[in-house]
Amino acid sequence: MTHADSPPIAMPSKDTRLCISLAARPSNLGTRFHNRLYAELGLDFVYKAFTTSDLPAAIAGVRGLGIRGCSVSMPFKEDALALVDVVEHSADVIRSLNTIVNDDGHLSAHNTDYAAVAQLLAEHGVPAGADFAVCGSGGMAKAVVAALRDAGFERGTVVARNEATGRELAERYGYGWAPGLGAARPRLIVNATSVGMAGGAGADELPVPGEAVDAAETVFEVVATPAETPLLRRARARGLRTITGVEVQALQAAGQFELYTGVRPTPEQVRAASEFARATA
Amino acid sequence: MTHADSPPIAMPSKDTRLCISLAARPSNLGTRFHNRLYAELGLDFVYKAFTTSDLPAAIAGVRGLGIRGCSVSMPFKEDALALVDVVEHSADVIRSLNTIVNDDGHLSAHNTDYAAVAQLLAEHGVPAGADFAVCGSGGMAKAVVAALRDAGFERGTVVARNEATGRELAERYGYGWAPGLGAARPRLIVNATSVGMAGGAGADELPVPGEAVDAAETVFEVVATPAETPLLRRARARGLRTITGVEVQALQAAGQFELYTGVRPTPEQVRAASEFARATA
Repeated sequence: MTHADSPPIAMPSKDTRLCISLAARPSNLGTRFHNRLYAELGLDFVYKAFTTSDLPAAIAGVRGLGIRGCSVSMPFKEDALALVDVVEHSADVIRSLNTIVNDDGHLSAHNTDYAAVAQLLAEHGVPAGADFAVCGSGGMAKAVVAALRDAGFERGTVVARNEATGRELAERYGYGWAPGLGAARPRLIVNATSVGMAGGAGADELPVPGEAVDAAETVFEVVATPAETPLLRRARARGLRTITGVEVQALQAAGQFELYTGVRPTPEQVRAASEFARATA
Repeated sequence: MTHADSPPIAMPSKDTRLCISLAARPSNLGTRFHNRLYAELGLDFVYKAFTTSDLPAAIAGVRGLGIRGCSVSMPFKEDALALVDVVEHSADVIRSLNTIVNDDGHLSAHNTDYAAVAQLLAEHGVPAGADFAVCGSGGMAKAVVAALRDAGFERGTVVARNEATGRELAERYGYGWAPGLGAARPRLIVNATSVGMAGGAGADELPVPGEAVDAAETVFEVVATPAETPLLRRARARGLRTITGVEVQALQAAGQFELYTGVRPTPEQVRAASEFARATA
């Protein structure tokens, strides 16, 4: 069996537990990642992506139907906070959730993006003394900035064209804001914008000037599709330390998987499921 | 492949449509019936039974998540009427639904029990001139009495210990009510109570005196589990015309299947899926 294959899928029964996702524009990544791990680990779960035009009704359904878990993507990550019973630290620290766990009708909010970013910063040994620039001020930028702050990074800048959200995010954590990178040459560059994303307006672009990439030590890319963005390609060509959106996506999904099922897949299982999910997603 | 087997189950994707059921105590019958037909017919659907302690929230979820169809069992069949947008004839005539179809957020109520009973009365050629006794006054009894009235049956009795519900049902359709069969010997006997149901209090009993069964021409059993109830066994031993709960269950499920998918399975496909569902349900 290659990573493009999956073990056979079991027929659902009345006792099978359902996990779902909610996004304005669902992808197949989560559905394939979770269902493949269920099959491999023999867990009686099924997972399916949904969209909704009525978030309160959808969350009422999670509660009313006993849906075990609900992954939440843009644009619902902030609005969903008001619809759960308790907001755990990982979601509270950035006022944004990406995961809802349903324990017998009691809904708790989590943010596995925050946890995944924090873990990857540690695993890759990014020194907290490095000054950083985080590009973006959306939900993922919040997760990154909060994780950097909690990891002890003292000097950094939120780079965002939107002054209101950029300044608010920066000041909440004691960092500076700038509308662009300018002549700054930070040692750590994080891309938490959609620049480089397949199908987007800036798919072939870099989020910062190429010279700034060349001068950095570490590049942290949050875009996961494609696996190799222009930013990552340039950073690898210069031999920099790189952390990829694929790593973030797989690790945050593994965190959700453990919250939903109570089972922690091995790193190799996570890698195989991530490859499977990306093969045709 | 025997009827105990199923074709392989496809991994759900983001585009897979979900159908569900709601019951106080879900069985596996519907989940196995529908999923096997999806697999056989190559339809991108998945089906799972649910229970709920909050019917309005569950129906809100059907709407908010775009769940395609929802089968409704006891004790939700009447209360759910207030939660849909339109009540179709089959549900309106008995003020009880067993099926909700979701067309882009517009919920319609149907009753495939009523339609199945009407079809079976015709297929088995039960003469409308026969006087009948229907035992019971619950949701299935309503479906049966309404179908008998619409099929032109003129003389009949609703036999129910509960005078309030029994009399109300009988009088709505112009029939009589009695607390027991007494010395009456109707040509058509319908059991729409739980007497004879596996695991119930009256699992080994007949709903009417044995002599009344012997004197009848047709016995219509609504209990589907077990397939052969004491009532059916006695009727078959006497060579009577019999209509079974298994037939009702399969036909009403096929009706739901067509409403949800737009595909009408063949009688042989329905029979095979019903056998599969009952094999281990």
